Amino acid sequence: MKPIDGVRRTLNVALGERSYPIHIGTGLVGNADAITPYLAGRQVMIVTNETVAPLYLDALRDALPGHLDVRCVVLPDGERYKTVEQVGRIWDALLEAGFNRRCTLIALGGGVIGDMVGFAAASYQRGVAFIQVPTTLLAQVDSSVGGKTGVNHPLGKNMIGAFWQPTAVIVDIATLSTLPARELSAGLAEVIKYGLIRDEAFLGWLEDSMTPLRDGDADTLAHAVALSCQIKADVVAEDETEQGVRALLNLGHTFGHAIEAEQGYGCWLHGEAVGAGMAMAATLSHRLGWIDAAALERCQTVIERAGLPLSAPSGMTRDDFLAHMRRDKKNIDDQLRLILLRAPGDACISADTPPETLDALLDSYPRG
Amino acid sequence: MKPIDGVRRTLNVALGERSYPIHIGTGLVGNADAITPYLAGRQVMIVTNETVAPLYLDALRDALPGHLDVRCVVLPDGERYKTVEQVGRIWDALLEAGFNRRCTLIALGGGVIGDMVGFAAASYQRGVAFIQVPTTLLAQVDSSVGGKTGVNHPLGKNMIGAFWQPTAVIVDIATLSTLPARELSAGLAEVIKYGLIRDEAFLGWLEDSMTPLRDGDADTLAHAVALSCQIKADVVAEDETEQGVRALLNLGHTFGHAIEAEQGYGCWLHGEAVGAGMAMAATLSHRLGWIDAAALERCQTVIERAGLPLSAPSGMTRDDFLAHMRRDKKNIDDQLRLILLRAPGDACISADTPPETLDALLDSYPRG
Repeated sequence: MKPIDGVRRTLNVALGERSYPIHIGTGLVGNADAITPYLAGRQVMIVTNETVAPLYLDALRDALPGHLDVRCVVLPDGERYKTVEQVGRIWDALLEAGFNRRCTLIALGGGVIGDMVGFAAASYQRGVAFIQVPTTLLAQVDSSVGGKTGVNHPLGKNMIGAFWQPTAVIVDIATLSTLPARELSAGLAEVIKYGLIRDEAFLGWLEDSMTPLRDGDADTLAHAVALSCQIKADVVAEDETEQGVRALLNLGHTFGHAIEAEQGYGCWLHGEAVGAGMAMAATLSHRLGWIDAAALERCQTVIERAGLPLSAPSGMTRDDFLAHMRRDKKNIDDQLRLILLRAPGDACISADTPPETLDALLDSYPRG
Repeated sequence: MKPIDGVRRTLNVALGERSYPIHIGTGLVGNADAITPYLAGRQVMIVTNETVAPLYLDALRDALPGHLDVRCVVLPDGERYKTVEQVGRIWDALLEAGFNRRCTLIALGGGVIGDMVGFAAASYQRGVAFIQVPTTLLAQVDSSVGGKTGVNHPLGKNMIGAFWQPTAVIVDIATLSTLPARELSAGLAEVIKYGLIRDEAFLGWLEDSMTPLRDGDADTLAHAVALSCQIKADVVAEDETEQGVRALLNLGHTFGHAIEAEQGYGCWLHGEAVGAGMAMAATLSHRLGWIDAAALERCQTVIERAGLPLSAPSGMTRDDFLAHMRRDKKNIDDQLRLILLRAPGDACISADTPPETLDALLDSYPRG
């Protein structure tokens, strides 16, 4: 295949017949060469939200060749709209347009849009093609790999959905220029996570690159996204069914999910909660004697320099944490399982943290 | 595996990791040995409808071992309740019960229940196990093989769904004793179809066996179900993605769908419309000179002896037929494709029926 203008890095997510490329570069939203090779036919439905539509919808739509039948759905923005009712609006639009099984959905937006459009594609006429165009750093490094799609239910997050792979992921780093700084930092939490769990060299590079990353330097961001996606792809390939090593991707998430659930989703961003959660996991690893004080400080410093909190929310008690942590999907037979660090760049699953050590951490951890 | 009491025939549907058995016998609804080997864990949700529940729900529930956590959902009966809202009731029940990814759904009922429960299983927590316990002949010979699940949308039948394979299909022939005679006949339409498209010997056996079949003889029905499922499994295995030979399963369905859509779904049963549609396809095959008058009469006789109509609905015109037939999913680039007979037991796909021959058939075909 000839090189595509603006593409700096391309990864292949190897899944046999369902393999797909992740193209990472700048100006790709408005570049037909990056997108049209992955359309299944001439029927195209772009789905985005009210925040992203004014920024990038015209560029994407105008870039697509004129012979295509392109329709658009603009959904409200926010996690609380990640519902089967909103997916129903996508189904309605597809049927009203008379789209058949050779149509292609394009998800233009963050993780909520990606998850909903993926589920709409998985379930429309028992499965049609979709392309991810993630416009937040979190979606670029998290949703690009893994095939998880779905919506929330009043009784639980991501409870309804499917595993469904995109035909391509088009990461336009330029879209991060319009991302609020707080959301960029939240995305960096997941980037740091990949370094902490698997790749000490990448962690070192991140420590040196935090300023250009937060300033939006395209080359630096492209490298961070590419390495993050590569690490996630490697982990997922080792463990597609989420039995073992894939659990490492949850570093910081057990504490983080407790923070998000306790505060109400949307108060803390997911990445902020994960940042504080990773700092807590590092502290616990230190107290267990697994990492020394210098390593702990290294973890804390990179999290802090990404603009993320190191402390738990004020007023959140040990019991608040434990109540949420006991419901964690990683637990087996009610045994709490935590992702901890044997070293920066080397995480493991631990099911035998002494309760008194965990209690002491939750009692003593600094509150914001 | 040791033999299961009451099982007369077992087929294996070979789909690699997703292979599953179809057990066919009598008394299986109330036989724990037939069902419990296929449960993923101890959480079990039986889903049925208001018609089937009074007949078989207690027998199934009481047969399951006491250490299981068994819940039930009873949905309203009928094609008009095959909606995402009713699937939502299944999701609600699963979440209210706190069921996890190792739960198992059991679909106890006809095709509507099977399709909805299959889709609920495909989409709950991105996919959980389900067992089909089909209680109509149509569901036993049609839904047991193929993995199609889904619901209707106001703008189209079966438009929302997934391919999702059961962990087992338990066909209890005894449940046919409570099936109305009209629905038994409708199921026989699909049984006859398998003979007509692929298996002249099976067609001959059906001609000899119509009386015991309609009288509900268990051995005869078990054989008819086993042969039908085997033929469908062979066809699906040859063509999982529905590009070629699988289209043969639509014999009679192009005309039949037009009849159903024109009359309003539910007036004619699906199998009745397919019966008339197969008679029309046989007549067209004869007019094209592909089968002789004796072969045509043979097709008509077996359809009629199953208690199915040979004529189209009164008042339905050529234009009524054509309007619906032009929307058929088998058509490619607006070219009408029909399943016709080269002989009883040998169907083929034809895209070049002369329009004047088709028009003449639709104008002249007897009306009921």
